[in-house]
Amino acid sequence: MPLSYLEKNKKKNLNDLFKLISFPTVSAKSEHKPDMKSCAGWLKDHLNGIGFKAKVYPTGGHPLVYAEYLVDSSLPTVLYYGHYDVQPPQPLELWKTGPFKPEVRDGYIYARGATDDKGQTWCQIKGLESVIKATGTLPINVKFLIEGEEEVHSANLPQWLKKNKKMLKADIAVVSDTAQFSKTLPAVTFGLRGIASCEVFVYGPNRDIHSGSYGGAVGNPVNILCQMVGQLHDKNNKIAIPGFYQNVKKIDAWEKKQFKKLPYNEAAYKKDIKVNALHGEKGYTTYERTWVRPTLDVNGIKGGYQGEGAKTIIPSMASCKITMRLVPNMTAKEACDKLEKYL
Amino acid sequence: MPLSYLEKNKKKNLNDLFKLISFPTVSAKSEHKPDMKSCAGWLKDHLNGIGFKAKVYPTGGHPLVYAEYLVDSSLPTVLYYGHYDVQPPQPLELWKTGPFKPEVRDGYIYARGATDDKGQTWCQIKGLESVIKATGTLPINVKFLIEGEEEVHSANLPQWLKKNKKMLKADIAVVSDTAQFSKTLPAVTFGLRGIASCEVFVYGPNRDIHSGSYGGAVGNPVNILCQMVGQLHDKNNKIAIPGFYQNVKKIDAWEKKQFKKLPYNEAAYKKDIKVNALHGEKGYTTYERTWVRPTLDVNGIKGGYQGEGAKTIIPSMASCKITMRLVPNMTAKEACDKLEKYL
Repeated sequence: MPLSYLEKNKKKNLNDLFKLISFPTVSAKSEHKPDMKSCAGWLKDHLNGIGFKAKVYPTGGHPLVYAEYLVDSSLPTVLYYGHYDVQPPQPLELWKTGPFKPEVRDGYIYARGATDDKGQTWCQIKGLESVIKATGTLPINVKFLIEGEEEVHSANLPQWLKKNKKMLKADIAVVSDTAQFSKTLPAVTFGLRGIASCEVFVYGPNRDIHSGSYGGAVGNPVNILCQMVGQLHDKNNKIAIPGFYQNVKKIDAWEKKQFKKLPYNEAAYKKDIKVNALHGEKGYTTYERTWVRPTLDVNGIKGGYQGEGAKTIIPSMASCKITMRLVPNMTAKEACDKLEKYL
Repeated sequence: MPLSYLEKNKKKNLNDLFKLISFPTVSAKSEHKPDMKSCAGWLKDHLNGIGFKAKVYPTGGHPLVYAEYLVDSSLPTVLYYGHYDVQPPQPLELWKTGPFKPEVRDGYIYARGATDDKGQTWCQIKGLESVIKATGTLPINVKFLIEGEEEVHSANLPQWLKKNKKMLKADIAVVSDTAQFSKTLPAVTFGLRGIASCEVFVYGPNRDIHSGSYGGAVGNPVNILCQMVGQLHDKNNKIAIPGFYQNVKKIDAWEKKQFKKLPYNEAAYKKDIKVNALHGEKGYTTYERTWVRPTLDVNGIKGGYQGEGAKTIIPSMASCKITMRLVPNMTAKEACDKLEKYL
């Protein structure tokens, strides 16, 4: 039985996962290029060792690992996606143990990549391995794509996908970069919101000028940026950009029903992030707001003097970074164009 | 004649001014404490040398220089105010010559303190000296107060003033920390707007949270701060805080008339700060807006991610620094209280 195989090999599998995690595969830092290469090679060897036909593919950036276990062309084919690169582990002083020295504490693995996404990818590899070992084969064809640039916008992936379209042909694709709903409730994630990013700059005088001498006569870029951002939501917390919701796919009845079935503990949700109240689009539940409705958030803003004490200036410029979360039938270009026109 | 005395001693007076400027009297930096002391001592000696009775007074912070030239108690007494401390000269890389190595280029002295306020104070000292030298005395009693903490909020001045109230008694006070109207038009400044400063903090979740996972359900401190700041002005660019103008002194007819007599070149004004249009309270001229009307400017704002590229977060907090310029009959407390209530 696959499960008993997993139980029997628990220690070895955990050790191998620790080995996978211990590669410091920070894709954003060029000094980790050798680690990226080593990790990709290790993954390839491991997949070959359990019966896959695996290969490392170079790209314009970090290499990716592709592996196949093809049983019979009449069977359905599943394409798994995962990534072996991780976010930078800074700030280091907040780690109790090294970010690449995995350790189990209270039943959790503490290390960068234990989740997002080495852990999830590992679960799927080990799950498939257990079926192969217990039954001698798989009931489906499996293709595995594990990239090394997910945390740096997958810059080289689209080109590689296009080039290898035929090899990747599959009936279904599974993204192994999602989460369980809770510790006791696994989840099949059937959609993730997209994203559109932009940056807004407001320029005023050619230099920071004295707010005592000029204040009242010259437009202040920070005040004006705030007015611009302030009008992006209306009183019901809907996005006030004209036509923003025009193409938004309505929530299906079955989705609404499924969402309602999920446990929801607003008190715990609020407690986790220490807020007194939630704040979102009127007429929608928290799950609807975060899963199937588009949103607009300023991720950062800056302008003028930010140091200690006061500095009486009208700043020369102000800027902010905005991302919008998109849902089916919206495009990033459309969202950005409408935002730009409105501003 | 006083003027011919000045003409004859031009070189010596310029050299002495250069000496005064060359003390790096940055009151904000404690490493300049010895420079502050040296400069105050030099000023005292110089004033004693031209006939004043001068003394350095220690305060809780940097010392101040007080000097008197008392002719006759039946004559009117003028109290001059100036300061010998300066703003930090950073960023140093933008100086063509050292900030404390004065140099004349194209008829201007380039150095920190050439204006604001060593230059202005020097003009008044030398003006008085020229009359003393040419006529043997002064037609008025003169008191001189030159402090060393103007750029750091004059923290110790009020206490010293209170303690020395009797000594400072005067019929008129002249602040020598203002400007000419233009190169060819001297000015008697009869009023300066006051100031009220505050800082606004908006707190959201206890940490930066992922805008993909939480976006739409949780209030974003930057968006909310922008909404708060965005509503501080109305469509006519009046400050929208209820009751803000309640106690504001109306412009007197004679002021309005005097302002109108002054040359005003809007094209040059705009060109100097490189803006395409001015932006201020409806119904007022530029001089009225900058001299006798209260204003509100955000001097700096920050929140969330400000580095390169995007970071998809709902920031844990956002803040901004606001200063309001006040006119007669307003108080800082009143302005801040009304702002706080409105926000």
